[in-house]
Amino acid sequence: MQKPTGAHALVRRTHEDRVLRALQANGAMSRGEIAAVVGLSRTTLSEITGNLLQRGAIIVVDTDAARRGGSGRPAERLALDPASAQFMGVDFGHRRVHVVVADASHEIMVSGSVRYHDTASWQTRTELALELVDRLSSQAGVRYGALQGIGIGVPGPYPAPEGLGRSHSAPGATILRPAPDGVDVAFAERFDAPVIVDNNTRLAALAEAITGAGSVADLLYVRLADGVGGGLVIGGQLVTGSTGLAGELGHVTVEPVGRPCRCGKRGCLETVASVPGILATCWEFGLRLDGPAALADAVARQHPVAERVLREAAAALGRVLGAATMTLNPAKVVIGGEIARLSPVLVEQVAATLAGELFPIAAAGPLVEAARLSDEDGALGALAAVFHNSPLLAKYPETADVKDRLDGSDPTPERAAHVRS
Amino acid sequence: MQKPTGAHALVRRTHEDRVLRALQANGAMSRGEIAAVVGLSRTTLSEITGNLLQRGAIIVVDTDAARRGGSGRPAERLALDPASAQFMGVDFGHRRVHVVVADASHEIMVSGSVRYHDTASWQTRTELALELVDRLSSQAGVRYGALQGIGIGVPGPYPAPEGLGRSHSAPGATILRPAPDGVDVAFAERFDAPVIVDNNTRLAALAEAITGAGSVADLLYVRLADGVGGGLVIGGQLVTGSTGLAGELGHVTVEPVGRPCRCGKRGCLETVASVPGILATCWEFGLRLDGPAALADAVARQHPVAERVLREAAAALGRVLGAATMTLNPAKVVIGGEIARLSPVLVEQVAATLAGELFPIAAAGPLVEAARLSDEDGALGALAAVFHNSPLLAKYPETADVKDRLDGSDPTPERAAHVRS
Repeated sequence: MQKPTGAHALVRRTHEDRVLRALQANGAMSRGEIAAVVGLSRTTLSEITGNLLQRGAIIVVDTDAARRGGSGRPAERLALDPASAQFMGVDFGHRRVHVVVADASHEIMVSGSVRYHDTASWQTRTELALELVDRLSSQAGVRYGALQGIGIGVPGPYPAPEGLGRSHSAPGATILRPAPDGVDVAFAERFDAPVIVDNNTRLAALAEAITGAGSVADLLYVRLADGVGGGLVIGGQLVTGSTGLAGELGHVTVEPVGRPCRCGKRGCLETVASVPGILATCWEFGLRLDGPAALADAVARQHPVAERVLREAAAALGRVLGAATMTLNPAKVVIGGEIARLSPVLVEQVAATLAGELFPIAAAGPLVEAARLSDEDGALGALAAVFHNSPLLAKYPETADVKDRLDGSDPTPERAAHVRS
Repeated sequence: MQKPTGAHALVRRTHEDRVLRALQANGAMSRGEIAAVVGLSRTTLSEITGNLLQRGAIIVVDTDAARRGGSGRPAERLALDPASAQFMGVDFGHRRVHVVVADASHEIMVSGSVRYHDTASWQTRTELALELVDRLSSQAGVRYGALQGIGIGVPGPYPAPEGLGRSHSAPGATILRPAPDGVDVAFAERFDAPVIVDNNTRLAALAEAITGAGSVADLLYVRLADGVGGGLVIGGQLVTGSTGLAGELGHVTVEPVGRPCRCGKRGCLETVASVPGILATCWEFGLRLDGPAALADAVARQHPVAERVLREAAAALGRVLGAATMTLNPAKVVIGGEIARLSPVLVEQVAATLAGELFPIAAAGPLVEAARLSDEDGALGALAAVFHNSPLLAKYPETADVKDRLDGSDPTPERAAHVRS
C-alpha cells in the first residue's frame, strides 16, 4: 500500500480518528452504525475500515444476527482490537470497592470487589483496591500493559466544594466525607495512566443512560439506599454543577417540618425515602424493624404499615422527580438502590405520582424504570466515563504492530475472571 | 508573504479557525483572552493574529483600558472585521416582534420592534417582522449583504412536542400555541441564510448567561410575566430536553389544591407568580386591581395586601428554584419579567427562601439576581445562539478582499439605528 502524504494523509487520519473514537466510546458497531455516528458516506467509511482492518487496528468481532429482528443479511460488527487498550473502572462505596477492567472492544476482562468497614480510611481503601487489582490480574493471567485510562467513583459530592471535606465538623454529617485525597494519584502512579474521578451515583446515572438497547441522552437517576443520591445526564454528558453539587435530589425538601436530616436541613427526601428514613417512619407507626432485611421481609409479607410507608416514600419521591422532570424534560427516569428492589409497587407509585405533576400530554412523560444495573453500576459508569473521555491512543498503530507493543495481554476468552471477596 | 503549503497550511488554518470561531462566539477579546480560550501559546497566537490582521480578516477595535481596574498597560482588543458578516436575532413575543442585527464584531447595527395583537396569525407576524427588517435597513442605510445566520425566538415549547400545536383544543390553553410553521422558511428564503429557532424564554436565559462581565456556564432563568417561563443553561449550552419541554418551571406544582392552571393541572407556580396569578390572589384578599399598572401602583404605595401577595409568590418561586438548584447546582439564578421589576422585595424574598432549601454551606448557594436585560433579551439570546452555532464563514478571506465581496454595508458608526413602532 502506498502511503499517502501531506494534506490527503491528514484528512484520512482525521476520518480514521473519528471512526476509532466512535468505537472507543461505543464498543462494537456495524459499519452502518459507524457511518451514522461519524457522518461519513458508506463508501468513504468502507475504505477507512478496510484500511484499519488490514493494519489490525480494528477487528470483526461478530455479526448483528442475534440482535436484529426480521430478515436481511446480518452485518458484521467491528471493534477496536481488544488487545490495543484496556480501561479500568473503580467504585469506592461506603463498605466495598468494586473493580472492572475492560478491553478496547468493551468486553469485561476481570471484575471483582472487596469489602471494608465504613470507617476505613482512604489509605486503607486505596491499598485494598490495589491489592484486589493485583489478585484479579494473577487469577486471570491478565496483565495491564495497555491500560489507557482509569475511572474512579467516590461517595459524596465531587469535586468536594469548599466547606465540605476534612474541615467540616457538622455532627453526624456522614455525607460530608473527607475528599479522597490521593486515591487518584495512587492509581495514576501505579498504572501510569490518566485518572478521572467523579461521584459514584453520578457515574451510575451515566451507566444507566448508555447501557442496553434503550440508551438515552437525557436521564434523571436517583438511588435509594443508606442515603438518597442522584445524577443527571443531559445531552449525553454528566452534569457536575457549578460547585460539584448537581444531582442532590435526596436533599430536596419534601416536608418543611419533617425530621432533621444529617445535612443540617429538615424534611429532606432522604429523611423519608432512604433505608433509615423508611425504618424510622415504620417505627413511628408502631412497626419496629431492626434493619433492611427485616424491612424486605415485612414488604414481602405485605405488612400494611410497611406497604403504606413505602407508598408514601414513593409519592414523595414522585413529587421531587416530577418537579425535576418539568425542569429537565428527560427521556427516562431511573430509580436504583436497595429500596427500589424491595417491591415493584415502589416504581409504580413513583410513576403514578410523577405523571400527575406533568403537562397532561404524552410528550411530557419520561419512561420511569427500576435500575437495570445493580451493585456494579458505579464501576461500569466509571468505565463509561473513561471510554467517552480518554484521549484516543496517541500512538495508534500505523501498521499491524500493536501486538508487539503490548506485553502479557492474553487474547483468549478464558482470561475473563470474576472475584468477590 | 510566502503561502505555506500542505500539512503546515492545514495546521495553520485549523489554528486560524479556532481564533476566528472564538471571536465569532465572544465578540471583541484581548490576545490574552483569545489564547486562554483557544489553548494556544501567546507566541503562536501572535503569529496567527498578525497574519489575520494583515489580511484584514480581523481588526483592532479598542483597548481594554476602560474595563480593567488597576495599573498595567492596556491590551488591544481584537474582533472579526465588522463588515465580514452580519447576524440577526428575532424575538416573536405574544404582542410584538423585536429585531436586532449585529455585525461580526458583535456591535448592534440596527434594532427595533413592532407591535401586533396577541391573536395575530403567524403569517401576519412574519410579514410584520420582514417589513420591520426592511424599514430598519432603509432608515439606517444598511444592507444585509453579509447575513450569515438568523436566530428566531418563539413563545411556547420548541420544538413543539407531539400533542401540542394546531390540533390541540384544550379550552384557554394559551401556552399550547400553534407551532410557528413557516416562519423559519420565510426568513431563510428571504435572506438565504441558515435559521435557528428556539423558545424565546430559553434564548433570554442564554443572553443572561453570556452577557456582561459575570458570564456563567450554569444558569437557571425564570420569567414572571403573563405566564411563568424558564430556561436552563448547563455547561454553556441551552437545555432543550428530550421533547422540547425543558425549563417549564412555571408548571411545577406549588399548591396541590390550588387554582386551576391553563395547562390543565392545578396549583402550578404560574397560578401564584404570574401577573394574572398575583392579580387573582390580590382579588381573593379583597384588593381589586384591574391590571399590571394598578398592581405596580399598589406595590409602589406599599399596599399591605399587594406586598404580602408578592412575598408569598416570591416564597413559592424560591421553593421551586430551591429544588431546581439542589438538582442542578447553578452558579446563578436570574429572575426576569415585569413582576421581577415591581420591587426589589421580590428578588430578596426569593433569595432568602431559596437559601433555606440548600445545604447549609456557602458552596451550595448561587447568586440570585434580577435580570440585567429587559425586553430585548429574547432577540439578544437569539443573536447569541447564532454567534455560538453558525458555521464559520465558509469562505473566510484568504486575502483582504472582504470589502469587495460585500455590497452596501457602510462601515461608519452612523449606520446604527433604533426603531420602535
